[in-house]
Amino acid sequence: MQEASTIPLSQVDTPAALIELPRMRRNIARMQERMNALGVRFRPHAKTAKCPAVTDAQIAAGAQGITVSTLKEAAEFFAHGITDILYAVGTVPHKLPQVLALRRQGCNLKIITDNLAAAQAIAAFGREHGEVFEVLIEVDTDGHRSGIRPDEATLIDVGRALHEGGMRLAGVLTHAGGSYDLNTPEALTALAEQERAGCVRAAERLRAAGLPCAVVSVGSTPTALSARDLTGVTEVRAGVYVFFDLVMHNVGVCSTDDIALSVLTTVIGHQVDKGWAIVDAGWMAMSRDRGTQKQSHDYGYGQVCDVDGTVLEGYVLSGANQEHGILSLAAGSGSADAGDIAQRFPVGRQLRILPNHACATGAQYGEYRAVEGGVVVGEWGRFGGW
Amino acid sequence: MQEASTIPLSQVDTPAALIELPRMRRNIARMQERMNALGVRFRPHAKTAKCPAVTDAQIAAGAQGITVSTLKEAAEFFAHGITDILYAVGTVPHKLPQVLALRRQGCNLKIITDNLAAAQAIAAFGREHGEVFEVLIEVDTDGHRSGIRPDEATLIDVGRALHEGGMRLAGVLTHAGGSYDLNTPEALTALAEQERAGCVRAAERLRAAGLPCAVVSVGSTPTALSARDLTGVTEVRAGVYVFFDLVMHNVGVCSTDDIALSVLTTVIGHQVDKGWAIVDAGWMAMSRDRGTQKQSHDYGYGQVCDVDGTVLEGYVLSGANQEHGILSLAAGSGSADAGDIAQRFPVGRQLRILPNHACATGAQYGEYRAVEGGVVVGEWGRFGGW
Repeated sequence: MQEASTIPLSQVDTPAALIELPRMRRNIARMQERMNALGVRFRPHAKTAKCPAVTDAQIAAGAQGITVSTLKEAAEFFAHGITDILYAVGTVPHKLPQVLALRRQGCNLKIITDNLAAAQAIAAFGREHGEVFEVLIEVDTDGHRSGIRPDEATLIDVGRALHEGGMRLAGVLTHAGGSYDLNTPEALTALAEQERAGCVRAAERLRAAGLPCAVVSVGSTPTALSARDLTGVTEVRAGVYVFFDLVMHNVGVCSTDDIALSVLTTVIGHQVDKGWAIVDAGWMAMSRDRGTQKQSHDYGYGQVCDVDGTVLEGYVLSGANQEHGILSLAAGSGSADAGDIAQRFPVGRQLRILPNHACATGAQYGEYRAVEGGVVVGEWGRFGGW
Repeated sequence: MQEASTIPLSQVDTPAALIELPRMRRNIARMQERMNALGVRFRPHAKTAKCPAVTDAQIAAGAQGITVSTLKEAAEFFAHGITDILYAVGTVPHKLPQVLALRRQGCNLKIITDNLAAAQAIAAFGREHGEVFEVLIEVDTDGHRSGIRPDEATLIDVGRALHEGGMRLAGVLTHAGGSYDLNTPEALTALAEQERAGCVRAAERLRAAGLPCAVVSVGSTPTALSARDLTGVTEVRAGVYVFFDLVMHNVGVCSTDDIALSVLTTVIGHQVDKGWAIVDAGWMAMSRDRGTQKQSHDYGYGQVCDVDGTVLEGYVLSGANQEHGILSLAAGSGSADAGDIAQRFPVGRQLRILPNHACATGAQYGEYRAVEGGVVVGEWGRFGGW
């Protein structure tokens, strides 16, 4: 955190990304306590915040190492002093020189793959440069995205290509991203068990084939918060839990009072006959993410709150242009009383908007304002790009 | 443009934002020639590219002044040497100190308003600081967003508050954003005329009330390219035409061969039985914009092209996670031949993806790679934030 005397929100230029510190700390403690109780290491995914101050708070609470989604994140967090880093996107040959450079500088950077072509390329590049890359095999436990299914023959082929190719086969990793589509505790607990069982099954197959597999890494925010047993798992990864968001609220793993990231905005005008207030948070400030569109409760571009964070029930950002947001009553929230919108939300009034998707909204900013007790207590840098 | 020896695309880390220079130059020339023929000044909206090198090319072609969507853009372009700047988002009181500071530094910054509360606040702040702000009144000609309707009584009240309050009432401005929802030449031409007539009507009412109104400013990319007559209009604004995108293609004002912005990506894996190739351009690289979802042709998260820019018909980014894109045949493009996807798109192959919305995709990057003849000829910085 930078040295900064406290600044009242009324003096903050809008739009701005706010982190409500007590909520963030509570979210971090909740996840870490859960992981401790389940007996696994916790490796937070830094892609949500991309902010050293946030990651420092996670590590201070007990996290061991971090996960990243880009090599830029790896380089930035390594420069910040974090050495145990897992790059959890399949590595292709042209990115190996960057991986090698980070490892040569002392970064304990681990990479992943889910196919034979990349595994062979990693092993060949490693041998050529005298480097033993540490590699995990990505496993597909829910059909969501990447990975080799636990029972596919390819799993062993990839394992052998890495191990016999002279690399360190570190383990297996999966991500049950399909959990974002669920919304009952029963379904989430069942998917968490499917994620665990599938990843452990892949590890057992590798070991049965005489291959090493020390790490069994699983995770997504919803499954991490829903797993009842993690036998055979060594570490869990999760990212968005640190801020939570409206998508996670609809999934059922947080309340709106847990959402630590919000966008500070100002009313700039009205269309009274339409029941609209116009605010200076458009899609550039909120992101174009409409993740709640297909869920049980569609929040438009975000839930409107008072400047102190109190939810204003029924009011959402129902539309967004680049720098204009349209604030109105959501469909089904009763009809707007003509004239009332301008009285309730006069020009110049500040509001906070809770985002659909914290990872996407955070990405629109170069810094966060850390807020506690209604005032800004720090400006926290955030990086982007690749 | 920075000094840079040419770099082949094969050496560019992915994902990366590419500007195909011959297309951009053609788009700039097309719009400027049209505006010259219609006898109006052209003031491009710099919010699309937020890139001095792009704006320089627009001014070299004949543009006079620029439009911006944030005071950050105003400050950056002013530092770059551009002085004639229109900030086209309604100004609220707490932003006036920034406006004042820029004007005191010599920036000819014009602001806009559409309500009496803000107009009175602008005039009061100006008088308090001895500054004559130059203000345009925002007019609503299509019910799309902000603005006062041409025949509303408020128009004159706001004009008087500014003029009699000692400010310089510079004119009226409108933006027919509803043009993005159209897709026939007839409808676009009709809306262009509605935009022109409404804005001219507002100007005439102000003048009839004894108020000055020198500037009559209209514009959106689709209406600017569809207007047949601009009698009474003094200037036109447009932004996205400089790059175009798939939304504009669906609106009918460009072909895919005109789209100058694309995202360079690399294949990182497959799910062969699903007909998926996984690429390293996810929503962080493309943005979450799904602007073609409601249009006649849904391109998912983007149209897939060969690395040389040739459209690969039927292939789109059908899904996106933060750093993963799912490349597949679009629904209705025939069934994927199992096994073919991995042969056609092997791991390591580079592709280009055309974006739904150039403004949103560009915003995900800190720089563009300017490309000509298949090689990178420059790195062009882009700024973001507020």
